Amino acid sequence: MADDIPDIVIGRLPIYLQALTRMIEDGDKTTTSSQELGERLGISSAQIRKDLSHFGEFGKQGTGYHINYLVEQLRRILHLDREWPVALVGAGFLGHALAHYGGFKRRGFRISWIFDVDAQTVGQKLNDITIRHVDNLEKVIRREKVQIVVLAVPAVAAQGLADRLVDAGVGAILTYAPISISVPPGVQVQYSDPVVQLQRMTYYLDAE
Amino acid sequence: MADDIPDIVIGRLPIYLQALTRMIEDGDKTTTSSQELGERLGISSAQIRKDLSHFGEFGKQGTGYHINYLVEQLRRILHLDREWPVALVGAGFLGHALAHYGGFKRRGFRISWIFDVDAQTVGQKLNDITIRHVDNLEKVIRREKVQIVVLAVPAVAAQGLADRLVDAGVGAILTYAPISISVPPGVQVQYSDPVVQLQRMTYYLDAE
Repeated sequence: MADDIPDIVIGRLPIYLQALTRMIEDGDKTTTSSQELGERLGISSAQIRKDLSHFGEFGKQGTGYHINYLVEQLRRILHLDREWPVALVGAGFLGHALAHYGGFKRRGFRISWIFDVDAQTVGQKLNDITIRHVDNLEKVIRREKVQIVVLAVPAVAAQGLADRLVDAGVGAILTYAPISISVPPGVQVQYSDPVVQLQRMTYYLDAE
Repeated sequence: MADDIPDIVIGRLPIYLQALTRMIEDGDKTTTSSQELGERLGISSAQIRKDLSHFGEFGKQGTGYHINYLVEQLRRILHLDREWPVALVGAGFLGHALAHYGGFKRRGFRISWIFDVDAQTVGQKLNDITIRHVDNLEKVIRREKVQIVVLAVPAVAAQGLADRLVDAGVGAILTYAPISISVPPGVQVQYSDPVVQLQRMTYYLDAE
């Protein structure tokens, strides 16, 4: 792993991967260019070439990128050439939505364990997975060597759970709670926040 | 509105706003610098200064940025110096989670209308809002001049609803469906996709 590649570059690779995958689904071509990719994504072609150059030579002057090859390389770079099992904490409305989310398949992830604190919920099945009590969290994380956890819990519970997950060895947390969580260096955190996405769009809306 | 500012710059402004707001909540200082902000966010200080320079002079060499002032300016630039009413389409698990989401308050948005297609759901209240039948979508959007819609619907329904929303005059759509939607130029679309966020983190995880 090349540690000197800026995180912001890593953050753009899944977006390139998604755009390339859509090109494959559209099925109308086998090659693309940094210009075409850039136009789709609103990113300059120079930026895309520079980002990819951190990892090697993926295209040729004049012929561009072979889409399938570039997808394969991006999946390898991002460690998506396998399926990552994911633990979901929180089986409320959001947890139910995530458990039923159709977007995980064939993109590298599968929700394999679900935890909740509510006695009524524990023991029930959600998308064929039996919901466990969150008291068992560390035990399962350690035994199964779970590296990725999605937190779909209220704001008040997020930090305490993050601390427990880090102690148990988790390396990546995607959290939906509207609160910032602290983790030690080396542990990845991503926030899913609809407000940040909405705020990006209001710039373009007419102020009346 | 300055049309020549790259969208990727606009996309970083809510992230700056969020980090600055957290600094205010932490309450330990009144000024910050592009260096400090950059370290928090993993973005270079030069990039932050360049991004902000599109909109004016917000800081001074040596003293940095007054946090409250910069927050106020970013809110003005992003048109967040008001509250935007938002229509939510889809009152399933995800719709319920969004209706109860605590992160909208004081950040510029309020879910004001909720629509669903299910006869059992229509007429019920969700977080004090009566769920309306989606047949009334265009009527309400036009009458209330709704500009922002959140789509929490299955993939198969997303494009059809997007077409109807665009026809009715909506300018910004945040969609959770795991599918790409087409809209005419000038209409903003943001995708909430847990997989893209997970893929960004697996780069840092050990491949076993």
